[in-house]
Amino acid sequence: MTKKHTIILQPSGRRGQVEENTSVRTAARELGVEIESICAENATCGKCIVLIEEGRFEKYNIESKREHLSPVTTEEANYFKRRPKLLKDKGWEAGQVRLSCQAKIRGDVLINVPEESRGNKQIVRKTARERQIEIKPAIRKYLVSMSPPTLERPIADWERLAKGLETSMALVRGAEEKLPRWHELKIDYQCLRTLSKTLREAKWQVTVSVWNDREVIQVQPGYVEDSYGAAVDIGSTTVALYLCNLRTGELLAAESEMNPQIVYGEDVMSRIQYTIEHPDGLEKLHKAIIATLNKLLKQAVKTANAQMSKSANEQMSKSANEQIANEQIANGQIANGQEDRLKVEDVLEMVVVGNSTMHHLVLNLPPKDLGLAPFVPAIHASVDVKARELGIHINPAGNVHVLPTIASFVGADTSAMILAEEPHKQDENWLLIDVGTNAELVLGNRRRLVCTSTPTGPALEGAHVEYGMRAAPGAIERVQIDEKTLEPRYKIVGEEEWNTGKAKGICGSAIIDAVAELFRAEIVDSRGKFKKGLSTKRVREGESGWEYVIAWAEETSIGRDIPITQQDVRQIQLAKAALFTAARTLLKRMNLESPDKIILAGGFGSYIDKEKAMLIGLIPDCPLENVYAVGNAAGDGARIALLNIEKRNEIDSVTRKVERFELPTDPEFQNQFMLATSFPHMSEPFPHIAHLIPHRKADPMAKNFMK
Amino acid sequence: MTKKHTIILQPSGRRGQVEENTSVRTAARELGVEIESICAENATCGKCIVLIEEGRFEKYNIESKREHLSPVTTEEANYFKRRPKLLKDKGWEAGQVRLSCQAKIRGDVLINVPEESRGNKQIVRKTARERQIEIKPAIRKYLVSMSPPTLERPIADWERLAKGLETSMALVRGAEEKLPRWHELKIDYQCLRTLSKTLREAKWQVTVSVWNDREVIQVQPGYVEDSYGAAVDIGSTTVALYLCNLRTGELLAAESEMNPQIVYGEDVMSRIQYTIEHPDGLEKLHKAIIATLNKLLKQAVKTANAQMSKSANEQMSKSANEQIANEQIANGQIANGQEDRLKVEDVLEMVVVGNSTMHHLVLNLPPKDLGLAPFVPAIHASVDVKARELGIHINPAGNVHVLPTIASFVGADTSAMILAEEPHKQDENWLLIDVGTNAELVLGNRRRLVCTSTPTGPALEGAHVEYGMRAAPGAIERVQIDEKTLEPRYKIVGEEEWNTGKAKGICGSAIIDAVAELFRAEIVDSRGKFKKGLSTKRVREGESGWEYVIAWAEETSIGRDIPITQQDVRQIQLAKAALFTAARTLLKRMNLESPDKIILAGGFGSYIDKEKAMLIGLIPDCPLENVYAVGNAAGDGARIALLNIEKRNEIDSVTRKVERFELPTDPEFQNQFMLATSFPHMSEPFPHIAHLIPHRKADPMAKNFMK
Repeated sequence: MTKKHTIILQPSGRRGQVEENTSVRTAARELGVEIESICAENATCGKCIVLIEEGRFEKYNIESKREHLSPVTTEEANYFKRRPKLLKDKGWEAGQVRLSCQAKIRGDVLINVPEESRGNKQIVRKTARERQIEIKPAIRKYLVSMSPPTLERPIADWERLAKGLETSMALVRGAEEKLPRWHELKIDYQCLRTLSKTLREAKWQVTVSVWNDREVIQVQPGYVEDSYGAAVDIGSTTVALYLCNLRTGELLAAESEMNPQIVYGEDVMSRIQYTIEHPDGLEKLHKAIIATLNKLLKQAVKTANAQMSKSANEQMSKSANEQIANEQIANGQIANGQEDRLKVEDVLEMVVVGNSTMHHLVLNLPPKDLGLAPFVPAIHASVDVKARELGIHINPAGNVHVLPTIASFVGADTSAMILAEEPHKQDENWLLIDVGTNAELVLGNRRRLVCTSTPTGPALEGAHVEYGMRAAPGAIERVQIDEKTLEPRYKIVGEEEWNTGKAKGICGSAIIDAVAELFRAEIVDSRGKFKKGLSTKRVREGESGWEYVIAWAEETSIGRDIPITQQDVRQIQLAKAALFTAARTLLKRMNLESPDKIILAGGFGSYIDKEKAMLIGLIPDCPLENVYAVGNAAGDGARIALLNIEKRNEIDSVTRKVERFELPTDPEFQNQFMLATSFPHMSEPFPHIAHLIPHRKADPMAKNFMK
Repeated sequence: MTKKHTIILQPSGRRGQVEENTSVRTAARELGVEIESICAENATCGKCIVLIEEGRFEKYNIESKREHLSPVTTEEANYFKRRPKLLKDKGWEAGQVRLSCQAKIRGDVLINVPEESRGNKQIVRKTARERQIEIKPAIRKYLVSMSPPTLERPIADWERLAKGLETSMALVRGAEEKLPRWHELKIDYQCLRTLSKTLREAKWQVTVSVWNDREVIQVQPGYVEDSYGAAVDIGSTTVALYLCNLRTGELLAAESEMNPQIVYGEDVMSRIQYTIEHPDGLEKLHKAIIATLNKLLKQAVKTANAQMSKSANEQMSKSANEQIANEQIANGQIANGQEDRLKVEDVLEMVVVGNSTMHHLVLNLPPKDLGLAPFVPAIHASVDVKARELGIHINPAGNVHVLPTIASFVGADTSAMILAEEPHKQDENWLLIDVGTNAELVLGNRRRLVCTSTPTGPALEGAHVEYGMRAAPGAIERVQIDEKTLEPRYKIVGEEEWNTGKAKGICGSAIIDAVAELFRAEIVDSRGKFKKGLSTKRVREGESGWEYVIAWAEETSIGRDIPITQQDVRQIQLAKAALFTAARTLLKRMNLESPDKIILAGGFGSYIDKEKAMLIGLIPDCPLENVYAVGNAAGDGARIALLNIEKRNEIDSVTRKVERFELPTDPEFQNQFMLATSFPHMSEPFPHIAHLIPHRKADPMAKNFMK
């Protein structure tokens, strides 16, 4: 019988008995501790460094000694010889540091696995709560060394590679993972076309990129460490692309551009209309967005290259490992002439999210039925399609993964938001709201999720408002009104102080502010009407009706007074009524009075003042500290799906179960909607902002809520 | 507890107990008898017709009565009403005929399943032995009827289809088959692009073509019965395409063309060379073969359409079922305006075979390393690639399946030959030989297969022979020589009688004949040298050495004598020595003296005289009745793989185990080769043709074989 020894792994504290001569890496894996390795245990990559701690450990009743590991191998010694600074930089002792793939257990040992060697790396995401995303990308890279073919063994190039790859995968991933046998592996057809040439130029030592543990999509000469991917969020207005390192999860570049489809129609309905009215409309809209994705991709790669060469000058190069490994390879067997700079073809996967219309247009699917009753998408399920089929210029063998849609107006962006925020993992009831021209709402918990959408109009984004503008320099972004003097204070984008700078217009957040303040200061009543006869010149009858002047002409850069008009207030009332009614409908379906948490996604959520949004009844009542603005949750969801393939299955299965409700089919909708146009809402108590609501008593319909 | 009844199925004789109200079709399946159905048990397709036999069957101890089945349903009655001639044509009684999907068992019954209703159809192939090929195509069609989307159930088009398809698949195939759930089904991306339009135009009643039980590749309005596929055999000289009905296995058209690559090089080596020497060489050769495949496809579809409209005039239209079903659909729910004529897009799959060079060129893989030591293909495994990736004009979502290669000179054509002849299922040892410019040989049985290849030169095909030509009109195809007078008789292609017609040249079979007869008549000796001083004018010293005149100038259409020259005899000696040595080497590896059977594949095998081939030592000794010529086995193998998807897995796994031998690496090769140039072979006994071998005694090296 084979002898057994005790191994203790720190910092996890895992311990167990393993057979003599088991490698430390294998032993660790048996005990559930993953240690990195990329070189298939060739003592080349150094990802699997561990430290042996010497001494008598009474707690564990063992004596750990360096001699309890097999002697340092020549390959191992060479690895450290090539990195003279490594030990000093890290403060490690020479005899203490071992490559865990080489060191074999010959006695009891206590092993410390340093942070950088630990497998299953994670990145931290801060949202409503902090959470960690495990890096489990669809793309993994393996170094494969093959013996060249001979007359005696003239096995074909692909089978030679597949056999080597089977071995490398098993070594890197561990035998207990369910991995395909060599003849179950596939190679992308376009990748196969260059395989023979690459293998010979690389002298039979290559790095193979495998998609989804089954398909080879790239073969590169020599040893290459990192893989890259892009997450894309296609909004009707803005397109954002995030370039990520798929091994580390690091964000290398974030680029954005206007959506070029805007010239064919400002909102989704007008773009759908364009494809119906023009025979080549779909083709045009599709090509426009693809061209933008390719442009963003190029920009991102450029940014990442600039970043990398900068940091290479400052610190030890990120690719030092690769260079050294390749030097070794060169000395031994092969020359690796590859430039290390990132190219667009090195981007091996793209994950795309967007609303259902953007989803259809990027996939070149006719969006007609998204816009016509009964409002049906072509597909709910996530789509995997080769980049070359779409003309996207990542590696042609690379996959484009488009997240699932939930309904005609609840698209892949909402799926991504769910993935980022995880309401489906909560015991509490969360309400997720993504506000744009259209608002998508998701409510629920781990047992049940319901969703709906509602048009909110452009007012909440500052459009179609008399002096509305985007949140650019010169835009008023905050407004306060003194209850007694009825005089305003305002803050302009780009100015540090209040009431300084020249105003140019009003952006979305300031419109919410202004309407809330007009209501609080009793300049407009709970039905949104301007009161007449107030002792201020700011309230006046303007060209298009009653209005309140926020900035006088001399305070502006446009030489005209900037007012909030009755029409503007009406727009906000309609928008907030739609949003509130949608939220109410979902709450009713879940038999809830109010949500436990409200998550506001999108730029809008980040800009607005939560308290004021609640005061005008834009969102349901909820303790203010439980209202969170999480920024671009759709973009975050896209990145999560890019970095962790298991999350794709998760969101596929969650979205299959989400219940969709169409508001117009709800019998109470019209009635509710009318009531919801009042401030804050004709039939709702709003206890959490009650102290701000003026004269509830003055409004007979609100008498139930009076103190 | 539910009542049970006895059901007996004829002609199989299967019997069993089934629960009351089980449909006859389901009951039959439970007892292992497949009954066809395409309409998902909607009483539409009529594929599942059965006959109930009335009477007391003592043998089974049952009384079978029509009343023991549930009454005829309205749908069922309608089906028969629409086919007034059906019963009369078939000689069936009205009450006796039932649709087995509708008729439910309520008492003991004896059911007759007519030939046309039986599932798992088979086609018969005659080769070395007769065998049946079960029709199990990769493509299956299912009728799917959906309820249109509503505001209350606005589920996406694909999911609506997938759910309906899940139901249809289960009904048609039976619950016990392992079929995917609806959310595991996939749809080809290009097919998805037109899905929404098709579903609406078809009013939610479509026929769905599913590839490999998992991917939807075509959606057609209404009810469509048949699927089509093409099998292709790409030879260096000739390309053949077989268009098949994938449901019935029927061959609809067979078309062939010269391989257009011939202008870039006559043999595979010169084409490989062309791709090495010209940067655009591969692209040119690839595009040339693709263009030819598209041309053949178009021709085949045209031929099939002409055939079909012809037979439609003669008998009841093949598509009557479809027409009637569609009428019914039209009356009920939908209009189906589809033309029934076959289009190239209706061809949904293509299976391709060819030697390794043709394999690489059709797949656009650089063939360089096929021609350079150590002679390695890019891939052995079979390749599945979308037709659109190759520019092949079957349905763009259709699959092109290329059979596996075994070695650089043992290609997908040999794999197809193995699939057609099945040496891997024999207890005996079979030797398969496919002779062309190159010969591939496979030897073995169910436990072990070995293979090799050898260049044989063009002589065996009649090329590079002084007066050689293809087997076209005017070619001498048979030669006999009188032992006493040394005068020849010959037969010309296209002539019924011997010694009539005008000769133009000699084709491959006649060259074998002539050489064998020259040897038998002792005009050349066992070393292949012309004897001098014979009493005939036909042996003479010509311009290029000694020769034997087969036809005098006045017997020809070219006005010149047609001789067999010493050079011609030498060519045949070299070719047959190569072939024989290859066969010998394989036999030695298997420790065999001789094969139990010899299978000659390819046109060559069909033309030659087996006895004469053995007399000159072209093939090893073997009882002549065990030598079979099977024609185009590669083409047959391609059709088998097209019609039965399980055969693809079978040949993939067989070829992974075939052992390859390269002749030049065999130490005895040169020695054996030299000995094998003699007639029939310097060191072989050849008992089965010993009576034809002249003067063994005259040859001292052959003394062991003398009687």
